[in-house]
Amino acid sequence: MYRTHTCGELNINNIGEKVILSGWIQKMRDKGKMIWVDLRDRYGITQIILEDGVTDSKIFENVRSAGREYVVQISGEVIKRFSVNPNIPTGEVEIKISEFKILNKSETPPFTIEDETDGGDEIRMKYRYLDLRRNPLKENLMLRHKITQETRVFLDSKAFMEVETPYLIKSTPEGARDFIVPSRMNQGQFYALPQSPQTFKQLLMISGYDKYFQIVKCFRDEDLRADRQPEFTQIDCEMSFVHQDDILNNFEAMTKHLFKKVKGIDITEKFQQMPYSEAMSKYGSDKPDLRFDMQINELSEIVKNKGFVVFDKAEYIGGICAKGCATYSRKQLDALTTFVKTPQVGATGLVYAKYNEDGSFKSSVDKFFNAEELTKWAKATGAEKGDLILILAGNKNKTLSALSDLRLEMANRLGLKDNTVFAPLWVVDFPLLEWDEESERFHAMHHPFTSPKAEDFDLLETKPGEVRANAYDLVINGVEIGGGSIRIHDNKMQKLMFKHLGFTDEEAENQFGFLLNAFKYGAPPHGGIALGLDRLVSLFAGLESIRDVIAFPKNNSGRDVMIDSPSQVAKEQLDDLNLKLKS
Amino acid sequence: MYRTHTCGELNINNIGEKVILSGWIQKMRDKGKMIWVDLRDRYGITQIILEDGVTDSKIFENVRSAGREYVVQISGEVIKRFSVNPNIPTGEVEIKISEFKILNKSETPPFTIEDETDGGDEIRMKYRYLDLRRNPLKENLMLRHKITQETRVFLDSKAFMEVETPYLIKSTPEGARDFIVPSRMNQGQFYALPQSPQTFKQLLMISGYDKYFQIVKCFRDEDLRADRQPEFTQIDCEMSFVHQDDILNNFEAMTKHLFKKVKGIDITEKFQQMPYSEAMSKYGSDKPDLRFDMQINELSEIVKNKGFVVFDKAEYIGGICAKGCATYSRKQLDALTTFVKTPQVGATGLVYAKYNEDGSFKSSVDKFFNAEELTKWAKATGAEKGDLILILAGNKNKTLSALSDLRLEMANRLGLKDNTVFAPLWVVDFPLLEWDEESERFHAMHHPFTSPKAEDFDLLETKPGEVRANAYDLVINGVEIGGGSIRIHDNKMQKLMFKHLGFTDEEAENQFGFLLNAFKYGAPPHGGIALGLDRLVSLFAGLESIRDVIAFPKNNSGRDVMIDSPSQVAKEQLDDLNLKLKS
Repeated sequence: MYRTHTCGELNINNIGEKVILSGWIQKMRDKGKMIWVDLRDRYGITQIILEDGVTDSKIFENVRSAGREYVVQISGEVIKRFSVNPNIPTGEVEIKISEFKILNKSETPPFTIEDETDGGDEIRMKYRYLDLRRNPLKENLMLRHKITQETRVFLDSKAFMEVETPYLIKSTPEGARDFIVPSRMNQGQFYALPQSPQTFKQLLMISGYDKYFQIVKCFRDEDLRADRQPEFTQIDCEMSFVHQDDILNNFEAMTKHLFKKVKGIDITEKFQQMPYSEAMSKYGSDKPDLRFDMQINELSEIVKNKGFVVFDKAEYIGGICAKGCATYSRKQLDALTTFVKTPQVGATGLVYAKYNEDGSFKSSVDKFFNAEELTKWAKATGAEKGDLILILAGNKNKTLSALSDLRLEMANRLGLKDNTVFAPLWVVDFPLLEWDEESERFHAMHHPFTSPKAEDFDLLETKPGEVRANAYDLVINGVEIGGGSIRIHDNKMQKLMFKHLGFTDEEAENQFGFLLNAFKYGAPPHGGIALGLDRLVSLFAGLESIRDVIAFPKNNSGRDVMIDSPSQVAKEQLDDLNLKLKS
Repeated sequence: MYRTHTCGELNINNIGEKVILSGWIQKMRDKGKMIWVDLRDRYGITQIILEDGVTDSKIFENVRSAGREYVVQISGEVIKRFSVNPNIPTGEVEIKISEFKILNKSETPPFTIEDETDGGDEIRMKYRYLDLRRNPLKENLMLRHKITQETRVFLDSKAFMEVETPYLIKSTPEGARDFIVPSRMNQGQFYALPQSPQTFKQLLMISGYDKYFQIVKCFRDEDLRADRQPEFTQIDCEMSFVHQDDILNNFEAMTKHLFKKVKGIDITEKFQQMPYSEAMSKYGSDKPDLRFDMQINELSEIVKNKGFVVFDKAEYIGGICAKGCATYSRKQLDALTTFVKTPQVGATGLVYAKYNEDGSFKSSVDKFFNAEELTKWAKATGAEKGDLILILAGNKNKTLSALSDLRLEMANRLGLKDNTVFAPLWVVDFPLLEWDEESERFHAMHHPFTSPKAEDFDLLETKPGEVRANAYDLVINGVEIGGGSIRIHDNKMQKLMFKHLGFTDEEAENQFGFLLNAFKYGAPPHGGIALGLDRLVSLFAGLESIRDVIAFPKNNSGRDVMIDSPSQVAKEQLDDLNLKLKS
């Protein structure tokens, strides 16, 4: 037997017991006549004590021969600790050692296994298995475990059926790029890895399964960034005989369940719902962070025709009020100007107006706007004495987007992004279609299976860009946690939608014929949602990136540097698949 | 609102309530002045009644316009049913209809949606979403849902941590053939889909995660048969600081938990454990079906040197006793001979001896063996009056394997495979290595990470084929439900194992360098198991094949005939990947 207890469970009630523990040496303090060893496992740390005259000298010798991260087994008696450590559950006891055995040695790790480590990103990715030993990562993965268990408990209790959908499916050019998998048994043909189980979960509704869920890996061959991985995990759900509100209510309840069970946070009020159009005009974003206010206000009417050509020429002028920032220095304002001019934000310049504590104004456009005019700005943006008004102008959509970035940047500077506060929001009434400049045609904003709102249906022929969809996103703290829609369940409507998306009948049939066909045999009204598990866990963990809530993530080139993958394969493997490299 | 209740929940307590139901028309009985409609959803069937003079004639008309599998919504009052149907929970009530609405039409399905359908295999695979409406399939998938939930509940309660391992990993030539995935961002390089998360779960042990589990898809590009799919699901587990018995005890408890919670079967006794060598000698198989006895008995000593050249030349002669089969006709015996001569079984002939009720013998080799000799056969095989002794001879391993097939065939004929009886068994002490005739070298019987038994370690250099491993299989009713081993956790031992498996140092480093390296930093003793979920569900469902416990399986050519995959992809997709077809 390797152990009678884990390193996290012994306490004052175990005093006098003979125990066996196994674990890793976290650290050792050697005072000559006394040695204390911190023995670590997943469950905690227990202190081991060696004392001259009490402990066998052979054990002293053996312990001294061991180092950090050695795997050892110790036997001994639980005794009361002289100086209590109130920070850990085992802090009132220690083990008077009587036997010691090295189970496995360890070389010195390439970085310290501590909460704050000295290892850089690259080395920690290469030795991910050692990085995972550190508490912050372990706690993230424990959190992930808990969220997934509680998600299933909730969904199971609501009669959702977990059904596994296939991973080897069919490539469709719609949407993001697929990862494809060559078939050996069907040469010249390929499977694709699913970007989501969308069509399969709809088929399950047609099968009458009523409520489906799956926590499932999905794949997108896209360029990567902090919150994107080539493989990611979805909490994927679908329900039949539901309207939009049924779905929102159900997944609002699930989200509250998770907050309660995992974070101990009781959210009693109903989640706010905000139409997409309002989110865009007030926050410049379809995923506004509502932990703080700082709304965008359109100023076009107030500021135009005062001789300032930048404003006069602009399609749109909007501003935000940064509370208490009237004291910003020249340097701070320059930094903001630099920020808005970065390519990611893309504004051409920043106009500011300080509403000083003494009631005076100071703006970057004093030449064109006097105090009376600036008072109007203050009123429109809600600025009071001591506040700073920040204004951007230009193309409407681009300016709103830049104002959104500026708003988030100011929130960072003002410390308004408290990661212990959670502000959930349903964004609803998304547009059905969005115009794609590149391909010069409409794309489905959500996906081609999303139903248009009945009352907007007539616009589909005349003003397709104005048709709203039965589509919704769950946004928390500015992060899109999930999204879904009520689906089309009618063969004719689905065909019409494919037509509007520029599919020929043949393309529609070739790619989605099975679904169109399935709609002919009694498809129920249905809809669903998919939540991003990686993002949900990172939100709960208070992290910005998803990388550290994934055990073995890939880097921004899609590489796993630990196992060194992707890698070359033997020519015979390609021969078997009837493939060769082009160059 | 589409419904106030499901079609499975109304009963005598709801009488008088106004309800709304939605579902599919299962069938309709039209008696002119009365119509009864069976309305179906996942939860059950509720009867709807229309009555001349009571029901609006417009509703009569509308209901008559609908057909089987139409999706409809009805409103009405719950009333007591005149003729009770005791077979369904809703059988005491029916709904007096007051409103009727067709939610979606249905064409006539290509086969009947009944427990026993008229559709052939192929058409049902093409219209899988309709086949899934049938009760037998729905119940299989409900069973699968329940097994997965209860598996997680059990493992979570035992402090197992669910960790997702990556799907895009690295191709290794060891073992079965990988599916590979070309990388666009790293041209000329490929990911592989995992055959199992083996190395990752071992790394998690090295990370100190102590107990890991995952219900996870795995992939093998092998030729297919009834119990094999290119993608299949494993309950994958690993534990640290354990000996073999710790793992057997834990997963025996899990299996019992599943039997109890899912099947209502209490298995109180400990699972039998049988060494591999015993399983092979007594049953000719490493996965013996212990629902029935019919052991194989070696007869070589008794039957040799009696002038029958077939026996005299044979390396091995063994027999089984088929109870009560002395009355088998010539035709039946010929059928058995034909069976053992099929290429799958591969015997060259069958010797029988009838031990007749009157105490006489009749054998196919009466020329060489008299009653006295045959009495010895009876004693050795346990045959009594009325029984039939069946004997095969030849190469030892092949003959044992053929006897195993014959044993299972006789069990089929005798109806001994009762699928409501479950006979669990641990097969232990597997050989570490097996000789591969084709490549003329040893292969790992389990996988290259399995540890040899300490007491056999010295044989590794001298008689590698005799080294036993710390490896075990869980076998139930002749099906290998799972297998696992105590792993090597020492760098040097792992290198030695790779050497014995014919890896050069460079190959070992190239393919498994990350694991060998990880072993240097404090790897704990660890081991694990993987259970085949598909097989477990099909066992619980009493099925022979795994296909009908999978929602969307592939056929024997690896095709999903419903979505028509795999399929050709656009040339641009291959260009992006720097690939082209060879021919």
